[in-house]
Amino acid sequence: MKIALAQNNYHIGNFEYNTEKIINRIQRAKEQGADLVVFSELSVCGYPSGDFLEFTDYINQCYASLDKIKAHCSGIAAIVGAPDRNVSPKGKPLYNAAFFLENQEIKQVYRKGLLPNYDIFDEYRYFEPATEFSILEFKGKKIALTICEDLWNLNDNPLYTGNPMETLARQGASLMINIAASPFAWNHGNERKKMLSENSRTYHLPMIYVNQVGAQTELVFDGGSMVFNQNGQIVEEMNYFEEDFLITDLELIGRKSGYTPAYQEENPDKIHDIYEAVKLGIKDYFSKMGFSKAILGLSGGIDSAVTMAIAADALGAENVLGVLMPSAFSSDHSVNDARELAENLNCPYKIIPIKETTELFEKSLAPWFKGLEFDVTEENIQARARAVYLMALSNKFGYVLMNTSNKSEAAVGYGTLYGDMCGGLSVLGDVYKTDVFALARYINRNKEIIPVNSILKPPSAELRPNQKDSDSLPEYDILDKILYQYIELRKGAKEIIAMGFDSALTQRTLKLVNTSEYKRHQTAPVIRVSSKAFGMGRKMPIVAKYPG
Amino acid sequence: MKIALAQNNYHIGNFEYNTEKIINRIQRAKEQGADLVVFSELSVCGYPSGDFLEFTDYINQCYASLDKIKAHCSGIAAIVGAPDRNVSPKGKPLYNAAFFLENQEIKQVYRKGLLPNYDIFDEYRYFEPATEFSILEFKGKKIALTICEDLWNLNDNPLYTGNPMETLARQGASLMINIAASPFAWNHGNERKKMLSENSRTYHLPMIYVNQVGAQTELVFDGGSMVFNQNGQIVEEMNYFEEDFLITDLELIGRKSGYTPAYQEENPDKIHDIYEAVKLGIKDYFSKMGFSKAILGLSGGIDSAVTMAIAADALGAENVLGVLMPSAFSSDHSVNDARELAENLNCPYKIIPIKETTELFEKSLAPWFKGLEFDVTEENIQARARAVYLMALSNKFGYVLMNTSNKSEAAVGYGTLYGDMCGGLSVLGDVYKTDVFALARYINRNKEIIPVNSILKPPSAELRPNQKDSDSLPEYDILDKILYQYIELRKGAKEIIAMGFDSALTQRTLKLVNTSEYKRHQTAPVIRVSSKAFGMGRKMPIVAKYPG
Repeated sequence: MKIALAQNNYHIGNFEYNTEKIINRIQRAKEQGADLVVFSELSVCGYPSGDFLEFTDYINQCYASLDKIKAHCSGIAAIVGAPDRNVSPKGKPLYNAAFFLENQEIKQVYRKGLLPNYDIFDEYRYFEPATEFSILEFKGKKIALTICEDLWNLNDNPLYTGNPMETLARQGASLMINIAASPFAWNHGNERKKMLSENSRTYHLPMIYVNQVGAQTELVFDGGSMVFNQNGQIVEEMNYFEEDFLITDLELIGRKSGYTPAYQEENPDKIHDIYEAVKLGIKDYFSKMGFSKAILGLSGGIDSAVTMAIAADALGAENVLGVLMPSAFSSDHSVNDARELAENLNCPYKIIPIKETTELFEKSLAPWFKGLEFDVTEENIQARARAVYLMALSNKFGYVLMNTSNKSEAAVGYGTLYGDMCGGLSVLGDVYKTDVFALARYINRNKEIIPVNSILKPPSAELRPNQKDSDSLPEYDILDKILYQYIELRKGAKEIIAMGFDSALTQRTLKLVNTSEYKRHQTAPVIRVSSKAFGMGRKMPIVAKYPG
Repeated sequence: MKIALAQNNYHIGNFEYNTEKIINRIQRAKEQGADLVVFSELSVCGYPSGDFLEFTDYINQCYASLDKIKAHCSGIAAIVGAPDRNVSPKGKPLYNAAFFLENQEIKQVYRKGLLPNYDIFDEYRYFEPATEFSILEFKGKKIALTICEDLWNLNDNPLYTGNPMETLARQGASLMINIAASPFAWNHGNERKKMLSENSRTYHLPMIYVNQVGAQTELVFDGGSMVFNQNGQIVEEMNYFEEDFLITDLELIGRKSGYTPAYQEENPDKIHDIYEAVKLGIKDYFSKMGFSKAILGLSGGIDSAVTMAIAADALGAENVLGVLMPSAFSSDHSVNDARELAENLNCPYKIIPIKETTELFEKSLAPWFKGLEFDVTEENIQARARAVYLMALSNKFGYVLMNTSNKSEAAVGYGTLYGDMCGGLSVLGDVYKTDVFALARYINRNKEIIPVNSILKPPSAELRPNQKDSDSLPEYDILDKILYQYIELRKGAKEIIAMGFDSALTQRTLKLVNTSEYKRHQTAPVIRVSSKAFGMGRKMPIVAKYPG
């Protein structure tokens, strides 16, 4: 039996586009002699559809898509992910389902049993978990068809009380198929491979795994669909960060040898992977929103430099406009570094000095400010004046403003709300400053694109004379480690201090994170590259008093 | 038996404050001869605690609070809400629990079975649902102790497959106690009463219901704890929107007659209730964040007028600063209306003309803008220049900026991001424009506080000559009805058009709502007063193409 794996990039709610793409792949699979073609989780509507799933009309359109798709399933069968109405009088109104289409009919519907409801997942919001599981019989094969999380209750994963695959194994499964929408995180790929491999080994079955690819605002689905032999070895691995299509011959899988994913504490390709994820995040945000041009403020610093370099790669250099807006406190070398960056990348740039503008704001406020010291107010006026210029250019010419904040500064609130925290998309908001440096070196791996000076000079917001980030913040190599323990690993102050970090510094850092929640609440969606990004996957009360 | 109902306002994560308050009420109840004192759901940490519940240290602090509290439970018993660790190797790590404290010990723990996971609720994110339920025996009473949603599976509510109260009734319950954290919505109070009354009648049992009170950022818990006799009549009803304390004598409940809440389609007190909810929302945001002074831009229009009036009531008139920032397009009457409002309220105000500022921005941009028409860009520059002034005053003097956007304009994206959409708290973001008018009339019910001219003149953003909202938007009485069908009732275009609304207008409105999701993503938390507010309870994809 030949099975096609269709790794597609869907557009949420764009039924016409998704349906056409699915039908196209069915045709291709048929032409290439496949018996079955497999699509990813909730492929007809795209994952995650959010509260659109609560609209009757949205679900109607999902069924209408299935109707169009099934008409193309003659001489070939297809497994397509879609929501399915729960017709029983009890429980949530939908199931997260896989539809088996054959002979132009919906032959069977398979429903997800384990619903992830943590981090960025909230499937219990919409779906009733299935409690009964049965085998799909097709051309003499007994297929255990599961949906993403269904396979994640192996070993001692404590999240769930049931295990759908146990039930299916008892029914004599001869092949596993899992359809997924599993988002990228730099340390997740290996975990995913290991879990799938262990399933295959545990049940001694070959497995077809089809993942979604493409970015949906914050979430980047990285693809990497796979075929495992019955020993849990990966014998086929599809491309990452792009669409792909593959036909595998089931009879040959058993004879192929591959590799068994091993435990890895570190991802040696971390920076490469983050780069690709962020690039795809930008690309899909623009293409799916119908925009083509980006704008950003260039400070001469490393965050805006890395953002511009990746955006230029994603959108084309000619579509990324840098705006240099020196203030009274900007150093000459900053302006030169920014200009050099734009020139290295072949990106257009403009220079708009803001000194006169900030002076006018200060003059207008002077009646109330007189006698008061220069403080964060005047710093913020500079950042906000820049935002007004950037947004004016954005409004006039249809640019989308890229936010250039990194995760370290977003964490501790080191940024101006409605100033440098503006932007439609946060490119580096899930990348710690130390990793921003690593990205810069990665971008420069073949030649100097980001001026070395931007990498080597001490980070500074340049909002007052001779300012350095380290005046107000700990050094980033320490700060980032504390933040990682608190944000990604959810350790409290006591636990972090017990690891050897300075007590006062740790407590100050955690307090800064908690008290700047109100700022992060108002910022752009952050392209998620870690296991815990700011945004939809981290729900913290704003009004709270907990020092962590 | 005498039972005390302690309706308290908790501060999330502020264990010291919450514990002290709980102990104080235990003492008071004891002094007044109560046998048992009942606190609301998750009272030790406050509801909702969000992802703080994922921190080991946070849960440790909950247990430590219980230890302190139980020491005061001699001669009196207490029911206190707190998270409880799931010690079994399977399932989510916590239960949402009620601790029965007696003789300075934790005697029993009761766990929530029905976990709400819709709208603003996401309890499956943290909690494992209980599947076993048993009676609490105390002084000869068999108490069916349940937690909030546990009672919401009566009749044909399709959300859940189980019903804890059925189990408890079979065990011979003689009294029901329900501890809750049920947030306000203008049409929810009656629904809540009816559901509780039906439970009491169905099982023919008296019921004690203790709700949380107080605002937690977006959510306003309205209190209104109640005592029902065994016929489902409300015999005691505690205050709304404030803390309260009541001792009820169980032996007398059966002899008291009260009223049975009836079905009501409309809430006749809707505007009063919204006013009180918003007022408490402001008050608690400030007090819990440690701020006392608010600032807002006064346009002379009705949104800023209503916001200022409620803020003055919540915080004291002297603590609310209005800033008038006329542009070249501001009419004289707008400035006069704004000034009159501030004077009527006895609020301080300042005037900062922005004409020179916007001209400077335009001059600086002229090299790129020359030959291009005045458009939304120049409109936005005005709104953003105002935001810079407001935030500068906020930064310098510690004011919190109040956002004055209403729900109608937030819905269709009629507002300037980083301009009039700025602010730490959205006061009217869940109030449709037609209800803002009703609030204005309510505020003026005894005397003219909001200048009548602000109420009567056609709404205008005054960002270009002779502009009116109705130039770009449908009349609010129609717009609001369409928005209500789409947002609150989640009807699609077809269903709304079938109700008689204009087809093109409906489709345009829904498209505006969907395409302005990116703006709402970046705005302040909205005080929730309806069953579907923008913010945490409405999760819509930004990158999507679904016209609704």
